[in-house]
Amino acid sequence: MLYKIRIHRQSQIEELQAEEGSNLLQTLLQHNYDMYAPCNGNGTCGKCKIRLIDPAGPEPTSKGHTILSTEEITAGYRLACRTTINSDLDIRLDDTDFLKAKVVTEGRRRKVRLSPAVSKRFITLTPPDLEDQRSDSRRLADTLGLKQETASLSLLRQLPATLRAANFETTLLFNRTRLAGLEAGNTTAKLFGIAVDIGTTTLAAYLLNLNTGDQLATYSGLNPQKKFGADVIARISHTLEKPNGLAEMQAAILEGINQAVRQLTAAAGLQPTDVYEIVLVGNTTMLHFLLNLAAKNMAASPFIPVTTQTFILQAAEAGITINQNAIVVLVPAVAAYIGADTVAAALASGMSTRKPVSLLIDFGTNGEIVLGNSEWLLACSAAAGPAFEGANIHNGVGSIPGAIDSFLIEKELKYTTIGGEKPVGICGTGLIDIAAGLYKAGIIDATGRMATGTGLPNLPQSLKDRLAVIDGMAAFLIASADESAHHQEVYITQKDIRELQNAKAAIAAGIQVLAATAGIRLQDIEKTYLAGGFGSYIKAASAIHIGLIPLELSGRLEAIGNAAGAGAVEILLSRRSLHQAEKIKQKIKYIELSSCREFNDFFIDAMLFTEE
Amino acid sequence: MLYKIRIHRQSQIEELQAEEGSNLLQTLLQHNYDMYAPCNGNGTCGKCKIRLIDPAGPEPTSKGHTILSTEEITAGYRLACRTTINSDLDIRLDDTDFLKAKVVTEGRRRKVRLSPAVSKRFITLTPPDLEDQRSDSRRLADTLGLKQETASLSLLRQLPATLRAANFETTLLFNRTRLAGLEAGNTTAKLFGIAVDIGTTTLAAYLLNLNTGDQLATYSGLNPQKKFGADVIARISHTLEKPNGLAEMQAAILEGINQAVRQLTAAAGLQPTDVYEIVLVGNTTMLHFLLNLAAKNMAASPFIPVTTQTFILQAAEAGITINQNAIVVLVPAVAAYIGADTVAAALASGMSTRKPVSLLIDFGTNGEIVLGNSEWLLACSAAAGPAFEGANIHNGVGSIPGAIDSFLIEKELKYTTIGGEKPVGICGTGLIDIAAGLYKAGIIDATGRMATGTGLPNLPQSLKDRLAVIDGMAAFLIASADESAHHQEVYITQKDIRELQNAKAAIAAGIQVLAATAGIRLQDIEKTYLAGGFGSYIKAASAIHIGLIPLELSGRLEAIGNAAGAGAVEILLSRRSLHQAEKIKQKIKYIELSSCREFNDFFIDAMLFTEE
Repeated sequence: MLYKIRIHRQSQIEELQAEEGSNLLQTLLQHNYDMYAPCNGNGTCGKCKIRLIDPAGPEPTSKGHTILSTEEITAGYRLACRTTINSDLDIRLDDTDFLKAKVVTEGRRRKVRLSPAVSKRFITLTPPDLEDQRSDSRRLADTLGLKQETASLSLLRQLPATLRAANFETTLLFNRTRLAGLEAGNTTAKLFGIAVDIGTTTLAAYLLNLNTGDQLATYSGLNPQKKFGADVIARISHTLEKPNGLAEMQAAILEGINQAVRQLTAAAGLQPTDVYEIVLVGNTTMLHFLLNLAAKNMAASPFIPVTTQTFILQAAEAGITINQNAIVVLVPAVAAYIGADTVAAALASGMSTRKPVSLLIDFGTNGEIVLGNSEWLLACSAAAGPAFEGANIHNGVGSIPGAIDSFLIEKELKYTTIGGEKPVGICGTGLIDIAAGLYKAGIIDATGRMATGTGLPNLPQSLKDRLAVIDGMAAFLIASADESAHHQEVYITQKDIRELQNAKAAIAAGIQVLAATAGIRLQDIEKTYLAGGFGSYIKAASAIHIGLIPLELSGRLEAIGNAAGAGAVEILLSRRSLHQAEKIKQKIKYIELSSCREFNDFFIDAMLFTEE
Repeated sequence: MLYKIRIHRQSQIEELQAEEGSNLLQTLLQHNYDMYAPCNGNGTCGKCKIRLIDPAGPEPTSKGHTILSTEEITAGYRLACRTTINSDLDIRLDDTDFLKAKVVTEGRRRKVRLSPAVSKRFITLTPPDLEDQRSDSRRLADTLGLKQETASLSLLRQLPATLRAANFETTLLFNRTRLAGLEAGNTTAKLFGIAVDIGTTTLAAYLLNLNTGDQLATYSGLNPQKKFGADVIARISHTLEKPNGLAEMQAAILEGINQAVRQLTAAAGLQPTDVYEIVLVGNTTMLHFLLNLAAKNMAASPFIPVTTQTFILQAAEAGITINQNAIVVLVPAVAAYIGADTVAAALASGMSTRKPVSLLIDFGTNGEIVLGNSEWLLACSAAAGPAFEGANIHNGVGSIPGAIDSFLIEKELKYTTIGGEKPVGICGTGLIDIAAGLYKAGIIDATGRMATGTGLPNLPQSLKDRLAVIDGMAAFLIASADESAHHQEVYITQKDIRELQNAKAAIAAGIQVLAATAGIRLQDIEKTYLAGGFGSYIKAASAIHIGLIPLELSGRLEAIGNAAGAGAVEILLSRRSLHQAEKIKQKIKYIELSSCREFNDFFIDAMLFTEE
């Protein structure tokens, strides 16, 4: 039996059909609705909320809606992941569409000499006759002064027609010194490239003119693999559970990249075929998926990737729809959880070229941390969990308009939201600010325990009034139902504080392990680079206040934005930078925290909120 | 409207359906009946004869049956190429099935030290743990003592599962020193290879055990491209006329090779996946088709191939169904009409390793001729036409059972046939013998003119009685209707003699041009190698008598069989032989006869029958 699902978004209504008994979240994801579901449909994150247009209409089979309040359920809210389709349904998707999430595409860039791996050269060959019957390939090799014919089979398939299309006048494409393509006539003016940072959640991409170095357009969008799971582990599971799961995963990311290519080139008035090089960075799992390599052995100890090497592929081989002779460069990684994105970020930070020691932190579900200088580099990956992304937080949201992103308790409680809109929830930076503020106000103690009404005689009444109990758990009201966009209270709960403590302790302990391994003191670290979207918006004082970043690093923090993307752009512009990335990869010594006893000690210490 | 065509062969009847108005020859070819049609369905060769089971039944639309005698037409014979289907038909295919053609698969082989390009090595890797998290690829490279990871992307896709299938015990496949594959456990005992000679008409293939050098099976079959045209020019035309003609041509030859693989491995109790290397030789057009390279520019002056280089491909890339990690080696060629088959034949002859000058003639529609020694090599391709293969000859047939293959006039006329069966026609070797015999008997003069009844007063009456006129043209009866298998006379005609004169003059003039270019006398040629099926069966005395082979080479002729196949086997067994083939390719100077004035002079002289 098929049912109709009508999806209302703003003024549009779309309709799709679903089998009786199918899951609503899966159905929406399969139809490419960008549902945010960081808990992978386990009913625990509460992020896949939809609203029934007619709350009194047929009730879909559902269970485990306990994360929603009675008011929400009455108002028609349901978790898509807990909803089984057994009738026609009219639903409204939340207006705070995740598509509107702020993706930080810009990162601090270093100046590099323009010397891309790809280049063009216009030449004229002598046409053949009965006195000169050299093959097309030999003629080309002779013109280039090469002893060996070097054209690939795919190039040889284009060779005869291309040479004869413009009377043996042809433009050669080189990948460094290797012949990579040829075109009829003089096309040297056309040479464009794209750098892509493949995140687990989002994809950022940059279009550059490789003849001038100018950036022509930027792109950010969601990673289409999202429908197979929110995090790398969920996605690896998918590749194991379905016979063609890995191929599906590859197809999804390729579609994401190809869409970025189409949008970027269209924005600049170009064709995808004008793109001759793509540089890709991403975590090791993303790059395995992209290459259709088994990621399975990275999901469990001892976390073994198939390879972490540099790849230079033909576009067709990589499955990317750009110029058929284009090259696709995959930046090298270090380990299962120190990916090409971290190598690129380290490159962009310049930390590996300087004598003084610096620290790089790239925040995410895993916080990648690199410590070192021009002599040595150490790296680790701290499992921070998704708290910084708003997942597993009672009223957590991503960095979307209306997310509470800063918070202060002076006499009164104050907060700001992204875009200045009515609050919809709390994002990662807001969470840190709130924890810092509550700790300063004494509402949470050094162990993270949140006060209940009776415990704080000196607290002003206006704050006392905000103390609450939710599901038997201490909580604190951040925004009232009146203030909020959805007329529902925004709380921070005891559990939220515990999630944050775990996250910040993982990062802080990771930093401590690296410093201890290197045998240096934290105060000897000259500079700390905060990379990634979260790293860009985080408030240093709060981060230090809650102990996410050790106090000793205070005053020497620098947000460098999407450093992975900046590193990818740098490699696109300069082939020497790929060589530098190779050297960074070789130099980094990876510290596995899961087998590190010191880490556990540091972690327990770092769970505490520290005194300033 | 669809009609049924029932095909009677021996005791079998097969049925197929055909659209009204379709051509019978094309229909049979499309259903993979191995019809012999060297004139490409132009109604001139008379080789695609079929017989109507009921000559009184519905008459298919037909035209241009003039090449058949009235008796034949009455008996139900028709040319399939001239027959349009407009009713159900019962037909009988000629019993002298071309499939029974003798294909010379054996060639003289040189002794080589067994050192195939592919080899295997069994190794055990240390399994990973948390103290040793190297990637699978790095672990493998370290075990092999390699600084760079060298596994290809397709190999990396197999790597993790293969390593873990037998507890990190694995067998590596190498292509020379390059890692080409890996298998779980110890599989070193399995290492087989196949050498293939792709002829325009036939395919010969050899299965060898690469651990021992033993030949396990041989195969010969038709080139499935035949349905697209009998010769290279017809096939190139097909690739130009149809949008996917080149892809069809590639698919056909791949199917031919894959069938050879299946039959060879089945014959030896092996699987196609046990084959780790295939060495391919063939003319330049065949290898272009195999690689899906445009052969177009070889069909017209100045005859330019895309490339003549060596190729070493992965089996999958080449489209050949053997072990997925197997390599496919294409032997290099010299020019559009001096192919890898000639290079391989020259290799097998050993002519390029000896000081004395020798000559190699590989007979076919083009006669490839190579002259030289260890210092220098010259080659040319003489357009002999298909007369040696029985095409364009009134009663010409291929080398099938019943073909008249030798002929002598002593007191009486004598002939033999292949297999000692009743004569069905005249094959190439028979044609030469007959021409030599008739010339000796004075029935044809030095210019090739055949006597009519009145011109030879001294001719014995028994021979005089054989003089006839067919279609207003002088002819000579070789076998009477009583003697022949089909109760029809077998004649040689004036036109047949002219065809032969053209063919032999082309070869003889080619030899003269090479000798003149080298500045040597024919008597200085120490040895003449006759390669190919025709070359193996040709009678030296007759060939010299008619001037196909210059008298000066007399007494130093050696038939070396399928030398191209022997060269391919040699390259399969020894990687040094591929290197030698490369050197032969580099050394050969190609002489283009079509722009050679001397060739025309030699050709006119060589048209004559010479005095001994």
